[in-house]
Formats: sequence, C-alpha cells, structure tokens
Amino acid sequence: VQRVRDLGEFGLIGRIARLTGRTTGAEVVLGIGDDAAILRLRAGEELVVTTDAAVEGVHFRLDQESARVAGRRAAAGCLSDLAAMGARPLGLLLAFGLPPSLPAATALGLVRGVVDESRRTAAPLVGGNVTRARDVSLTLTALGAVYRGSALRRDRGRAGDRLFVSGVLGRSALERARGRVRTIPEPRIEAGRRLARLPAAGACIDLSDGLASDLMQLCLASRVAARIEPASLPLPRGYAAACARRRLDPLRLALAGGEDYELLFSVRRGGPGAAELTRCLRLPVTRIGHLEAGRPRVLGLPARWRGWRHF
Amino acid sequence: VQRVRDLGEFGLIGRIARLTGRTTGAEVVLGIGDDAAILRLRAGEELVVTTDAAVEGVHFRLDQESARVAGRRAAAGCLSDLAAMGARPLGLLLAFGLPPSLPAATALGLVRGVVDESRRTAAPLVGGNVTRARDVSLTLTALGAVYRGSALRRDRGRAGDRLFVSGVLGRSALERARGRVRTIPEPRIEAGRRLARLPAAGACIDLSDGLASDLMQLCLASRVAARIEPASLPLPRGYAAACARRRLDPLRLALAGGEDYELLFSVRRGGPGAAELTRCLRLPVTRIGHLEAGRPRVLGLPARWRGWRHF
Repeated sequence: VQRVRDLGEFGLIGRIARLTGRTTGAEVVLGIGDDAAILRLRAGEELVVTTDAAVEGVHFRLDQESARVAGRRAAAGCLSDLAAMGARPLGLLLAFGLPPSLPAATALGLVRGVVDESRRTAAPLVGGNVTRARDVSLTLTALGAVYRGSALRRDRGRAGDRLFVSGVLGRSALERARGRVRTIPEPRIEAGRRLARLPAAGACIDLSDGLASDLMQLCLASRVAARIEPASLPLPRGYAAACARRRLDPLRLALAGGEDYELLFSVRRGGPGAAELTRCLRLPVTRIGHLEAGRPRVLGLPARWRGWRHF
Repeated sequence: VQRVRDLGEFGLIGRIARLTGRTTGAEVVLGIGDDAAILRLRAGEELVVTTDAAVEGVHFRLDQESARVAGRRAAAGCLSDLAAMGARPLGLLLAFGLPPSLPAATALGLVRGVVDESRRTAAPLVGGNVTRARDVSLTLTALGAVYRGSALRRDRGRAGDRLFVSGVLGRSALERARGRVRTIPEPRIEAGRRLARLPAAGACIDLSDGLASDLMQLCLASRVAARIEPASLPLPRGYAAACARRRLDPLRLALAGGEDYELLFSVRRGGPGAAELTRCLRLPVTRIGHLEAGRPRVLGLPARWRGWRHF
C-alpha cells in the first residue's frame, strides 16, 4: 500500500493541485502554489469568511464511510456557514492534518470529496496546507461575498418575527444512530442568497448542533426569546416509524441531533409566509414558532433537550 | 486543575472572545460570534488569504516552551505568508483542536499567544472554531489585502534578477538544536509591504522550510535557476562559535534549518542594491546570489543540503 510518507509533502501537494485543476479566472487571481491565494471581490461587496474543522473519530469515521464522502461532508459543513450568511462562495482553503502512515488513497479520497463539494458549490479550492499529525483532520476555510450590509446575521432577530426552517430535521441524526453511511446534507447556498435579498428577512443561522442549541445561539445574539411549536417541526418521510423501530425519541433527534445544515431564520411580522418563502427560496420552508421579548431562551421545549456539545 | 471539559465548548469560546476584545471597526464589520466574520476591503484592493497549521509534537512542544510563546509563534508563521505577498493584514481566524483533558490555562495560554501576535501586527482575531481532537493544534487563517496586481509572488522571478534575503538565517534552527526556549521570529509585514511598492521587485517567498528548499520553490514557480554564494549568507552574531560548541554544521542550519521567516526575494538587474534595500525596507538586507536561465535548480550548494520535509 502506498502511504502518505511515500508521496512526501510536495508529492501530496502536487496531487492535490492536480485534483483541483485550474482555478484562476475572473475572481481567483492566484490559486494553489504560492504563499497565499489572491481573490477579487466585486465592487460594493464585503468579504465573508469562516473556518471549520472535521476530525477523524469525532466528526467522521473512516471505518464507517468512504474517505470521499467524509471529505465532501467536511466541506459541506463549512460552506453551510456561508449559506447562513447569505453569501456567494468565492473559494475554499484546506488545512490537511494526517499521519505519514495514512494510505495515500485515503488521503486523496478525502481531498476528492472536498473538491467534489467545492465544484458543486462553485467554491474552488484555492489554497491550503498539509502537515503531519496524529489525527486525520480537514480544517476548511470558506470565503464568500455579500453586497455591503446585506449579510444575514444571527443578531438581527426581533420580538414578533416568525421563525422558519428549511427542509427537514433529524435525518442526519437518525442515520448516525443507525450507523448507516450518511447522505450528505447540501449547504443551502442558493436559499441563503435568496433570503438575503428579502427586505423582510430577520436573523439567520445554519443548523449544525441541532435546532434547540442553534436557536438558543440566535436568541443570545438577538437578545430575544423564541417560542417553538414542537408539533410543527418538519420531519423526514418514514421518520417516525424508523425511530420507533430503533426506540429512538423522534423529537429529541430532530431538536438535538445536529448536522441538519438547514437554515433557521426569522422573518418580520407581515413578511412572506411559509408558502411564499417556499417559492422564493426554492425549497420547502416550514413555520415552527416565533420570537418574543424576554431574556434569551427557547420556550415550548422540555429542559432535557439540549444540543450536542463538543466537550 | 480546571480542564477544557470543565469550561465546555461555549465557555471556551466565550473566554476566547473576551481575550480578543472588541474587533469591529472600519474594516471588521462582524467579528467572533456569528456563523462567519465580515470584513471590508478598500476600493481597488484584492484579498490575500493563507492557512497554516501548528501541531503539538510537530511544530511546538508544550514541555519545552510556554503555551503563550507557542501560540504566538503559530500566528507569526501564518502571518509571515501575508508578509511574503506584500499584504496589509486584515484579520485572523483560529481553528483550535484540543483534547477535553487539556488544562484550561494551557488552552487559554495558546490563544493569548495568538492574540499577542494578532495585536502586534494589527490582524484582529475575527473568528474561528473549537473542536475536540487528540492533537493540540492551532490552524490559523490569515487574511490580508493588496492593491490590485501589486502582490508579491513566487512566480515573478526572471533570469538576471539579483537575490536578496532580509535579516539573518539559522537562528531558529540553532535554538531548536539547543532545545532552548525559542525567540519568536517576527513576520516581515512592513518590509513586505514596502517591497511590494518597489517597481524593481521580482519574486518573493518567506523562509519557512529553509533557504535551500524555499529557493527551490521560487525557482520552480518562476521557471529559472538560482545561484547562491554560500559565503554571503547573513548569519547571527556569535553563531559560528555556538555551532562549533555543539558540533553543528553552521551552513547546514542556515540553509535547511527552517522557521527563519525572513523574506527571500529577487530584484531586477539595475534595481536597488543591498544598501538601498536596507534603507527602503527598514531592516538589514543581504545579497546572496542571482537568478539565471535554465531548469529550476539551486546552484552553488552541495546536493546534501535539503530542506526540512514534513513527512
């Protein structure tokens, strides 16, 4: 088996550059191969930037899924943060940590997955870094652009806003509980950009830790309370039966399962409703509650539902 | 001892945000606390972005130096890539991997070091991510700006250019060999920005792996050969004696030791010489050779001198 140490650092970087292909164009002035990448924004745009790490044994397991799927999911998780800001993707950087004994095919599989997602979202891989480490890890930085002042933010919620969520909740958590090869949530890039253009848009966050935890973050940033109607949560088809077979609490998975990568957002009172938002964002949107005055907290849920914690 | 697991994820992020302080201003629209940071560039500027990882046991050792020094050096290493592009720093992101059992003081010491360097270089810490991992690692993303088309690049060298280096070589390698607490190389941000404004500037790279290896990268990117005069290399005061006491090869350390974080650059024939460059860049500059036509290679050095490899 060929190992990463057989490729060497520059050999591995060369293979990554070949997988990436040519990225330079109108917006990428300089891609992989220099001390840094150079990107160009359009007039009137601001830069949006976020970083996210996926670690083997914590965020993915190479004995349970292919390296390519794990790599694609790592990139999707980071790009989801751009979606939550309503940003247009500009590019990705990958800081790749790996032990020298890792099979080269695994290392390149992970990178292929990142490149797959990068192509799908028009966020070219423009730079990065490889380093020796015990953990296999992919730390992604996603760069995007918004027109000045038009970014979606967590702190823009107001009492009276209605709360909506895109897609369905709990699918990733159910797949994890079943130990199945997981489907890859698609970051809601286009929906986020469409939402950012709506004058009635309020606050927005992407669902990475689970609705209960992420909604609390939105409340803290916006200094409002939220009230949820648990019966209104959108669940996947066949979900209740699948949970029952496994004796899993369906509401708990939907509220605290995490990795849904849907958008949770508020819309001003008098703004569009779920049907109109579904047309406008081009994916299913469900109303799940509203924001109200008061100290930051999530009402309507038993206290035992808490988000997934990293530590 | 308080551990990271006692702080919890959000507790740790809160402490990091407090260490960072307020970062918003004319250029930082949104700092730590949302799904992503928002930065503003000036009219006519391009974005420069780079990422770099520092892993415990590979790039730093917490049993040999303080967490704060290690953190500062990690940030300096990443900012050095901005210096090599001639960029003005805009901000930093930190992806922080750590085991839950790590003492909280160590975790916060690492972050303090990053914040120290971030303040020193006016590159505010505007975002990041914390995640559980076996390795303690700091993955930094540095963001900067250059005026359109004025970035320093590795691929701008031409046959006939003279080769220069800032500062001295081999100090970091000597300190590592002696197992001493290391001084922290300062990224040559100001010198890089001044060099970028010189019409006679050619190619530029920062010295992270060692002169022999980094010069080879410059040659590969510019498709030229380089010829070095080893006797001309600038060495620290007292360096020869210190190497002799330890039976270390002084030239080898200077050529292949790495982590000098000086700038290696070329200047067109007829451009300023070392004395004028020293005045202009406001730090010592030494002429060490030139570029010439031919396949990419470094001439004037025995083949046994090779750069430090990560694998």
